[in-house]
Amino acid sequence: MNLILLAPDDIAHQGLARVTDPRRLRHLREVHRAAPGDRLTVGVVDGAIGRGELLSLDAQAATFALEGLDQAPPPALPVHLVLALPRPRMLARTLEHVTALGVKRITLLHTRRVEKSYWMSPELEAEKIRQHLVLGLEQARDTQLPEVTLARGFRPFVEDTLPGLLEGRRGLLAHPGMPATCPRGLDEPTLLLVGPEGGFIPWEVERLLAAGCEGIHLGPRILRVETAVTALLARLF
Amino acid sequence: MNLILLAPDDIAHQGLARVTDPRRLRHLREVHRAAPGDRLTVGVVDGAIGRGELLSLDAQAATFALEGLDQAPPPALPVHLVLALPRPRMLARTLEHVTALGVKRITLLHTRRVEKSYWMSPELEAEKIRQHLVLGLEQARDTQLPEVTLARGFRPFVEDTLPGLLEGRRGLLAHPGMPATCPRGLDEPTLLLVGPEGGFIPWEVERLLAAGCEGIHLGPRILRVETAVTALLARLF
Repeated sequence: MNLILLAPDDIAHQGLARVTDPRRLRHLREVHRAAPGDRLTVGVVDGAIGRGELLSLDAQAATFALEGLDQAPPPALPVHLVLALPRPRMLARTLEHVTALGVKRITLLHTRRVEKSYWMSPELEAEKIRQHLVLGLEQARDTQLPEVTLARGFRPFVEDTLPGLLEGRRGLLAHPGMPATCPRGLDEPTLLLVGPEGGFIPWEVERLLAAGCEGIHLGPRILRVETAVTALLARLF
Repeated sequence: MNLILLAPDDIAHQGLARVTDPRRLRHLREVHRAAPGDRLTVGVVDGAIGRGELLSLDAQAATFALEGLDQAPPPALPVHLVLALPRPRMLARTLEHVTALGVKRITLLHTRRVEKSYWMSPELEAEKIRQHLVLGLEQARDTQLPEVTLARGFRPFVEDTLPGLLEGRRGLLAHPGMPATCPRGLDEPTLLLVGPEGGFIPWEVERLLAAGCEGIHLGPRILRVETAVTALLARLF
């Protein structure tokens, strides 16, 4: 927790914030070993970053006096990430990684090799997803919450949604065996599609290429989804 | 498990291999749903890659007839990674990530902000470390086991070990706030140093720079060690 992310509910009134949830209180006590008078980095959800002077900390609440909330959050990556829905534990970690790296738009997509049971996971509840996004923001000292969309059908996604996403974005399909190596150092708006463990099936690859995506690969090594996504984002941007 | 990694013990005699450990037997049954006649990718530790035809699979053993063990493993990254010892769970995952990405030399280093208790963790036993390396190799279809060295003192490392590691290698110290951005697309031998959660302390940074390392950064975002290491490797090579 390199930034204390304040939701509107946490801001008691002008210049004062109260944090009351057990996770953050425990972190303040046990990791920060915070004491009144300490100045910590705080940020407002979808807003600015500044400092908070800890006024009090007990089992129920931490109270901060806010100062100089005038810094912008770090720049976002110019990417919309379309990720075949990973298994629940991998999803949780991947959401944290990509949020920390600065991804702001995420679509979780059904594909043939996504197990249908993954769509029933409690990890897909909005509140659970938000928890992982918040952990990623707290890690990276960011405040802008990513938007996560669920696309429960491959065909409707390709036919109805993908053309709009590709307007003004360069579409990159990351898939083993594609002809081009992953480009480096892009700064243009990009749509990055990453398949599930086991990959997209050939029909899915065909459809995505036909829709205008370029196929790219990361080399001969087969990587876990969470490793591949981080590696792709770090190489692309 | 995209490759069945055979240790010398697994190779029964010329052309035949037996896998008897419960983890791999369960994976063959439950994930591969393998049946006699299936051909799977196999590799020999520190050796070549080929195919194995499954002859039999029961609760005690899987037997393979080996074919064409003549493919080279994928190329390694030209990097020696020096990593401040992470907490045990992070260590396990990071070893898997970096092995999958192709790192072959790893030094785990003590620094001021590494908790001393981490050095007592059972995760540091040679057999435990080997398990994580094997998982990384199985994931990436590689056979070359990385070498992992423990450096339990920062000062002896800098004074006695580092000068030798920097002979013929470009030393890169990844640390927030360093002046240069992380370079891209290197193919020269590199020594990459990554600090603990919380970073190297200023004295450590000074010593590493004085020894000839260049300071590099990944931008304003603070990343977890496992995210940062994957991102650095993907951007550098």
